[in-house]
Amino acid sequence: MARVVEVDDAADPRLADFRDLSRADRRPDRPGGRGLVLAEGTVVVRRLLASPYPPRALLGVARRVEDLGPDLAAVDVPAYVTDAGTMADVVGFHLNRGVLASADRAPAPDLAPLLAGARRVAVLEGVNDHENLGSLFRNAAALGVDAVLVGPGCADPLYRRSVRVSMGHVLRVPFATCGLAEAVTALRAAGFVVAALTPGGDPGALTGLAEQERVALLLGAEGPGLSAEALERADVRVRIPMTGDVDSLNVATAAAVAFHATGHAVGVAP
Amino acid sequence: MARVVEVDDAADPRLADFRDLSRADRRPDRPGGRGLVLAEGTVVVRRLLASPYPPRALLGVARRVEDLGPDLAAVDVPAYVTDAGTMADVVGFHLNRGVLASADRAPAPDLAPLLAGARRVAVLEGVNDHENLGSLFRNAAALGVDAVLVGPGCADPLYRRSVRVSMGHVLRVPFATCGLAEAVTALRAAGFVVAALTPGGDPGALTGLAEQERVALLLGAEGPGLSAEALERADVRVRIPMTGDVDSLNVATAAAVAFHATGHAVGVAP
Repeated sequence: MARVVEVDDAADPRLADFRDLSRADRRPDRPGGRGLVLAEGTVVVRRLLASPYPPRALLGVARRVEDLGPDLAAVDVPAYVTDAGTMADVVGFHLNRGVLASADRAPAPDLAPLLAGARRVAVLEGVNDHENLGSLFRNAAALGVDAVLVGPGCADPLYRRSVRVSMGHVLRVPFATCGLAEAVTALRAAGFVVAALTPGGDPGALTGLAEQERVALLLGAEGPGLSAEALERADVRVRIPMTGDVDSLNVATAAAVAFHATGHAVGVAP
Repeated sequence: MARVVEVDDAADPRLADFRDLSRADRRPDRPGGRGLVLAEGTVVVRRLLASPYPPRALLGVARRVEDLGPDLAAVDVPAYVTDAGTMADVVGFHLNRGVLASADRAPAPDLAPLLAGARRVAVLEGVNDHENLGSLFRNAAALGVDAVLVGPGCADPLYRRSVRVSMGHVLRVPFATCGLAEAVTALRAAGFVVAALTPGGDPGALTGLAEQERVALLLGAEGPGLSAEALERADVRVRIPMTGDVDSLNVATAAAVAFHATGHAVGVAP
């Protein structure tokens, strides 16, 4: 059970996890030079508390911490309660979601066990925008993607903005950071068809993938797309049919279309 | 042919269309109390110049205006050229896209001719966020939607932020603002199946709509969804299959999935 602790001093050293959040994502004093995992708002805090990331503390106004009541039963961390003004002084700006939670990063899972039970996997290359990455995880969670492989050139999925935009789903969809060669080797060994989503792909082949037992979708950033290496490593190249003069979709949107097109036949809960 | 006019005074009254852009979307002095149509950046300015909206003027740095060369041949408006600093003084902030164009709003098309040649139409209710609305138009353009009916409670598609997020596609996909009853009556008269996208819909029926000659998709905002009135007026209720515990997708993302699922069989250019 979380221990509720009233605080009224923004300088209280126990609130260090939540101090100056606009800079908290880059923390050279922490392993890997990256910040803690931070969740904002009751919905995302709930997802953090239910995730594999070890919680450290909460900070919130009384009403929001109370909203979390049942979710706090299972965790043994301090829940610092204060007023909105003190909270803003700690965080560095007014945070209208009213509650935060911090957690430690967790070791990334190994590829083989991650893929063992998976049927739909996204493999990302060069998705270097935190909002797009967060949206993509949200869409992956909604549309039945079992794991995400975060390849070269991608942003950090646990950056605060990614967590927020994903609505906390980045904390729930298992992911691993790895190179492309490593990803494709592991996917092949696990029986996946590796499909690259690319403007030069076959528009008819996308929905055909729905019949495959295990599909990995290789997705690149909106402008540059997938690298030549990624395209060469794929078993098949597919694309979303688009009207002639439109360049492309946002990567998270394209991913959602592709997740749905390749996934709906394999039993995403109706 | 646009007339290039060098200007060096931010107070030049000829630049009034571009003054204080952060407030330009609300203009009580203009018809309807709404601002001009404003395009930012070469890509979107090109789409404005190719759109039905009557252009009024351009303002940009020399290099960006030169980039537009061929696109300026067909329009008879002034293209004011200045340096980045003067441009920032006019606009009210630094605009790194380097070129702007203004146009007048155009009368909305009548529903019957708008629908006459259409096969895929989106009908929006309560989409009150300018970014979501812009993204939705971008997705509509990419995925073969022929027209958008902007129903009650929606934001203004021609708001500057909507235009920008749509990447100018809001200037290309024809739309009309109308009430729900009016929309559904016109759609029925034109032979459309009216399908409501809603969490309570039939997950199997979405892709089945791809077989229909004419489909109108009713889409509501992410939180509240469609109104009871909208659900009642629809011929069929469909939904995107999602994993059990994920609430919903962003409305523009859900729209993209639905546009693809219902549209790919009817000849969006492969």
